[in-house]
Amino acid sequence: MNLQIKQDIRDKKSKLSIIDCDVHPYPKAMDEIRAYMKQPWRDRYRGGGRGFYDNPVHGSRLDANPPNGGPAGSDPEFLQEQLLDEYGIEHAILLPRAFCNLHPDPDFGTAIAAAYNDWLAETWLGKYNQDGTFKGSITIAHQDPLAAAREIERWAGHPHFVQVMTDSGARAPFGQRQYYPIYEACARHGLPFAIHPGTDGMGINIQPSPGYPTHYIEWHTCLSLGFQAHLVSFITEGVFERFPDFKIVLVEGGVSWLPALMWRLDQEYKALRYEVPWLKRRPSDYLREHVRISSQPLERPDNDQHLLQMLEMMDAEHILMFASDYPHWDFDSPLRAFPKLPESMHNRIFHENAREFYKL
Amino acid sequence: MNLQIKQDIRDKKSKLSIIDCDVHPYPKAMDEIRAYMKQPWRDRYRGGGRGFYDNPVHGSRLDANPPNGGPAGSDPEFLQEQLLDEYGIEHAILLPRAFCNLHPDPDFGTAIAAAYNDWLAETWLGKYNQDGTFKGSITIAHQDPLAAAREIERWAGHPHFVQVMTDSGARAPFGQRQYYPIYEACARHGLPFAIHPGTDGMGINIQPSPGYPTHYIEWHTCLSLGFQAHLVSFITEGVFERFPDFKIVLVEGGVSWLPALMWRLDQEYKALRYEVPWLKRRPSDYLREHVRISSQPLERPDNDQHLLQMLEMMDAEHILMFASDYPHWDFDSPLRAFPKLPESMHNRIFHENAREFYKL
Repeated sequence: MNLQIKQDIRDKKSKLSIIDCDVHPYPKAMDEIRAYMKQPWRDRYRGGGRGFYDNPVHGSRLDANPPNGGPAGSDPEFLQEQLLDEYGIEHAILLPRAFCNLHPDPDFGTAIAAAYNDWLAETWLGKYNQDGTFKGSITIAHQDPLAAAREIERWAGHPHFVQVMTDSGARAPFGQRQYYPIYEACARHGLPFAIHPGTDGMGINIQPSPGYPTHYIEWHTCLSLGFQAHLVSFITEGVFERFPDFKIVLVEGGVSWLPALMWRLDQEYKALRYEVPWLKRRPSDYLREHVRISSQPLERPDNDQHLLQMLEMMDAEHILMFASDYPHWDFDSPLRAFPKLPESMHNRIFHENAREFYKL
Repeated sequence: MNLQIKQDIRDKKSKLSIIDCDVHPYPKAMDEIRAYMKQPWRDRYRGGGRGFYDNPVHGSRLDANPPNGGPAGSDPEFLQEQLLDEYGIEHAILLPRAFCNLHPDPDFGTAIAAAYNDWLAETWLGKYNQDGTFKGSITIAHQDPLAAAREIERWAGHPHFVQVMTDSGARAPFGQRQYYPIYEACARHGLPFAIHPGTDGMGINIQPSPGYPTHYIEWHTCLSLGFQAHLVSFITEGVFERFPDFKIVLVEGGVSWLPALMWRLDQEYKALRYEVPWLKRRPSDYLREHVRISSQPLERPDNDQHLLQMLEMMDAEHILMFASDYPHWDFDSPLRAFPKLPESMHNRIFHENAREFYKL
């Protein structure tokens, strides 16, 4: 179009006297907006509505970026070298991060979960797994419990999927009835149900505190509160009575809160058992048979004795299983995470509990 | 109107051929509906939308009903006899239960708070308080922080109001900025800010767990999680740096969770202090100067040593203050709530900490 014609069109259109009251200008790249920001916001701003409750420093160990490219944790050979060989780790239980639990559309969530499972089976549990070092988790979208149960059926019997996993983010505590098709499938196939932090207060999920936290440090600290609420729900709803073969593992939800919570719940139960007559034992009596907790991030008070006392109080020797959270920022080294433990406790935490729990 | 006229009107009206598709029939009394229920629902149903998260057994000690009538806790003379004289209690810190924090209308909430304050000042802190035994709490509606600050001003300087109080139920964690007019007023007048369980997940308030619990035992156990989230918020937002004279007391929110939470938060702070540069000290370092916790309901594990270790870990000698929660169902007796304590710890918990904190 030559310039004269363009001008004619403009002249004609201007006579229509239109004012458009909703038009959106976009920066070509987010750096155009970042240029007007001071630090730390310039580094942290990701554009759109993204980036809230993101680690303000970095989410993964910087030294975990594979030398051949790709994000941290994406190269099985480098992981073998940096984690498994470095510390003499026999099996790694893999928990992919699909974040499918925040989607309002359950079909979308289910599709993401299924794709992650296909990918994991073909890669880390398949062609990169000739010696069976890697054991995997079946990702499910708990928004659609019946579809989740079908996804579990699809993988049950696979030699390297050893558990079912979900994010801790939810619209209702996990002991409630809408989730039972998932637990029935888990129990039928002897697959533990793993809960891992994520999607709390995001998408359709409720934040497990009285309103939204302000900072990542607050959000991340309070993740452990959501785990506690889920555990109380599992126990008080009688899930372990309804599904006697059902087991759960709380991954990366903190450790030392367990004694205080169980003391409180046992005490409430004394006065209120009338309300939950399906419980046949004290709430804390369900732990050893049905519940495991992974160790990272292990709290480390100034005084090692305090932690050792806490581990004793919670029967860590039977409840706790070591985890590193590789390649994330708050990685726990097998060599430095714990103070010196009694040998039998050390062996149970570092391998025996997991060997029994996952039948390895 | 005689019967013939009534019949005429009916005949005439029926010719209009009207069908009304929304008409509400009411039972004359809730007992008419209860009669069709089995137990325990028959006893627990209160009608309308009321009665959720109510104690399914009874909310108060049955022996606390005053012999001259009225609900438990409504007769100062009987309370004097059953609580103060019985256990040799010198001062009782009174926390009325106004539940004003659940109201969507802040003016309504503020009016309820003010009425409770006028009532308390005239009765328990006035004509029933000749020897100054009773010390009171200024109830505020935190939905309207500026109005709450004015209510604090109205009572500041009163000889027997020793703190400001709110329910734990909220729409946002208590460290956030919208609440600062309240804290500024508290700090200016040397009045601690007390948080007491109540209204969580009710009215306009958010439930501090991932969705709504099912049973009272679950809701009540998880009340302590909301307190933990509020404490993390106060610390990480830097409220104690902004208001150096501001102090809080967590009443009836549980006790033994404190070490685990502070270990976790201190550890997060090591890696994430970049995000909260206004903190001058480790998170847990703010406790002794700014935070007190009341003892009831004190967790009582099977092994007394475990509780004593926990009290040691949390510096209970300086943080904890005795409370009975009279006349409620989970009352803690001063004689039986604790195992045998070291004498100095006993004295600080049972009176010295409160004497210093409330300047009694």
